[in-house]
Amino acid sequence: MNITKPTLLIDERKCKANIDRMVSKAKGRGLKLRPHFKTHQSLKVGEWFKEKGVEAITVSSLGMAKYFAGAGWNEITVAFPLNILQAELINELAADVKLNLLVDNVEAINAIKDRLTHPVSLFIEIDTGAGRTGVRFDNASEIQEVAKAIKSAEKLSLKGVYTHAGHSYKARSEEDILNIFKLTKSRIASAKEYIADLSADLEICMGDTPTCSVGEDFSGIDAISPGNFVFYDVMQVFIGSCQSADIAVAMVCPVVSINKQTREVCIYGGAVQFSKDNEEWNDKVIFGLIVQQDSKGWGEPVEGCYVKSLSQEHGIVRLSPKMFDEVKVGDLLTILPIHSCLTAEAMGSYLTLNGEFVDHYAQKNRDWPG
Amino acid sequence: MNITKPTLLIDERKCKANIDRMVSKAKGRGLKLRPHFKTHQSLKVGEWFKEKGVEAITVSSLGMAKYFAGAGWNEITVAFPLNILQAELINELAADVKLNLLVDNVEAINAIKDRLTHPVSLFIEIDTGAGRTGVRFDNASEIQEVAKAIKSAEKLSLKGVYTHAGHSYKARSEEDILNIFKLTKSRIASAKEYIADLSADLEICMGDTPTCSVGEDFSGIDAISPGNFVFYDVMQVFIGSCQSADIAVAMVCPVVSINKQTREVCIYGGAVQFSKDNEEWNDKVIFGLIVQQDSKGWGEPVEGCYVKSLSQEHGIVRLSPKMFDEVKVGDLLTILPIHSCLTAEAMGSYLTLNGEFVDHYAQKNRDWPG
Repeated sequence: MNITKPTLLIDERKCKANIDRMVSKAKGRGLKLRPHFKTHQSLKVGEWFKEKGVEAITVSSLGMAKYFAGAGWNEITVAFPLNILQAELINELAADVKLNLLVDNVEAINAIKDRLTHPVSLFIEIDTGAGRTGVRFDNASEIQEVAKAIKSAEKLSLKGVYTHAGHSYKARSEEDILNIFKLTKSRIASAKEYIADLSADLEICMGDTPTCSVGEDFSGIDAISPGNFVFYDVMQVFIGSCQSADIAVAMVCPVVSINKQTREVCIYGGAVQFSKDNEEWNDKVIFGLIVQQDSKGWGEPVEGCYVKSLSQEHGIVRLSPKMFDEVKVGDLLTILPIHSCLTAEAMGSYLTLNGEFVDHYAQKNRDWPG
Repeated sequence: MNITKPTLLIDERKCKANIDRMVSKAKGRGLKLRPHFKTHQSLKVGEWFKEKGVEAITVSSLGMAKYFAGAGWNEITVAFPLNILQAELINELAADVKLNLLVDNVEAINAIKDRLTHPVSLFIEIDTGAGRTGVRFDNASEIQEVAKAIKSAEKLSLKGVYTHAGHSYKARSEEDILNIFKLTKSRIASAKEYIADLSADLEICMGDTPTCSVGEDFSGIDAISPGNFVFYDVMQVFIGSCQSADIAVAMVCPVVSINKQTREVCIYGGAVQFSKDNEEWNDKVIFGLIVQQDSKGWGEPVEGCYVKSLSQEHGIVRLSPKMFDEVKVGDLLTILPIHSCLTAEAMGSYLTLNGEFVDHYAQKNRDWPG
């Protein structure tokens, strides 16, 4: 491989192991797996899921749904509040695939119902504590109103209830995650109870990487739609969802400047490559962790090494004394991203350890492989 | 215009006024203007500069240089530390255009000098206080060593000294900016003095939007290369570089969910559209300011309205009581970005107020205009 500029490596073996683990977990518990593809956004990575028997997927936009529908996926959930302005694209998609959307208000249903040309299934999005979107789990009257509005619309059917326990991202241990998992299960189950009389086969789907990675007892749950687990990242290590050895993507960046006074190194790789997501770590804000490079990919984070700041295309890296003394201009540093979803989106393509191109929906790879 | 999903609007009139102002300032002071195109990254916006007589440009990567070289720009400065791994691309570019690069160490020069096939000019990058890259302004021996290494290499010529006073971004008033401007001018001038005997026509170039917007006395400076001024943004308003009426780009995002309990609104528009840059404002961290929409574009920020948080494609917005009471699912909100460079990069295209497509190097517009 001849890497000359910031490149997002994907370790196919680690990625497939992450996929295997979640597929097995779902199978073992009789759960339908609707993996969220917003993390990888890749047709190639999608094939790795298909090889394991996955048939239904989740995405975060209608445009992304179209990208995967074009590759033959035919059951797609768009886990984002129904955007009535995109009725045309909804019709186009629903003509081709089994389309599930999310909704959390009656207004959107009323605004779109007469414009639909093909059947669409709706999950009612339930807020089980994250406080972002969804009807609150204990708001029985609103959950029932939304359900009735769906049932009364000719082209709509009621699929079930969906929750993203996004507050699990605030966890910092397996115990934290399991507490959130337990509460989420009970809240989403109670939300479903309010509308159980409206349909016999309502599905409960929940989707967040921390609880789906760590949780064992999924009783009462029908389907899961985690996404980040396909790659994991530094944030998930800090949350307690995975080990750093599970992280399946890493940035490789050229060293372009070495500051002997500050003992810091500048890499070609900034906000437009990593995104600006960061984490607190040892009382510092960091934007990535430096790992050992080896012939088979990369190893564990090197103690005392991290990305300290990012501007548009510059990254400033702190190295351990030993690594600083050895680093040279023109070397490549390998870096675990804080948030793999946003780094993959920013990069818009991947390179396998064998040097093969892997696509991304954002397709920001115009000068590949230059 | 039929906007159905997050869209980055560009107000051509405001943008051209920003260009005019900087072109006039440079002309009036006998400064060469080398505008930094990393903010807009657009061939179309580049044409607006060309119409005003601009001939030399600055970019942040060799790939971006190639994008603009392909459109006929023939003097391009890549304001990023020389990346020796991209020698091939440097040769390809230097065959076609007058190419200026930045360097801050002897090692990079020695590593690349025998691989160059065409003449390349180098600015020595000077650190005048930002502490990111560059030889420190008072490190006479290193500045001289780098200069001599350039002079002794057959294909290299010494263009001058370059500084990005990035610490001006910490300013919070015109007075702060002018203090940094004054210090930067004196430091970059003293850096040049150390090597003045090596060449008769060394250029001093400095490039940051705050000092170039606010500064008046450019004596001693030969060229400027600001970039962000073409659009400005909320960050520049807070720094003191511009007024909010000068901001030439704004995001338009559909409202998809309204939370009556929290009185917050969810828009379709998250980190992959805005980027995650943020600012502190009235003791809150914000990710954008909501503006009045009008038939000609947009007006001033609405008091009490701001983007409170961003996840991958969701944005959570706080509205004033009046605006909250009026907002409906399916409405469009217009939002000034915190950092226009990163928002433009994340969006990968623009729409003029007349509904015309404007290109961006990132080209993340695969499903345009759907």
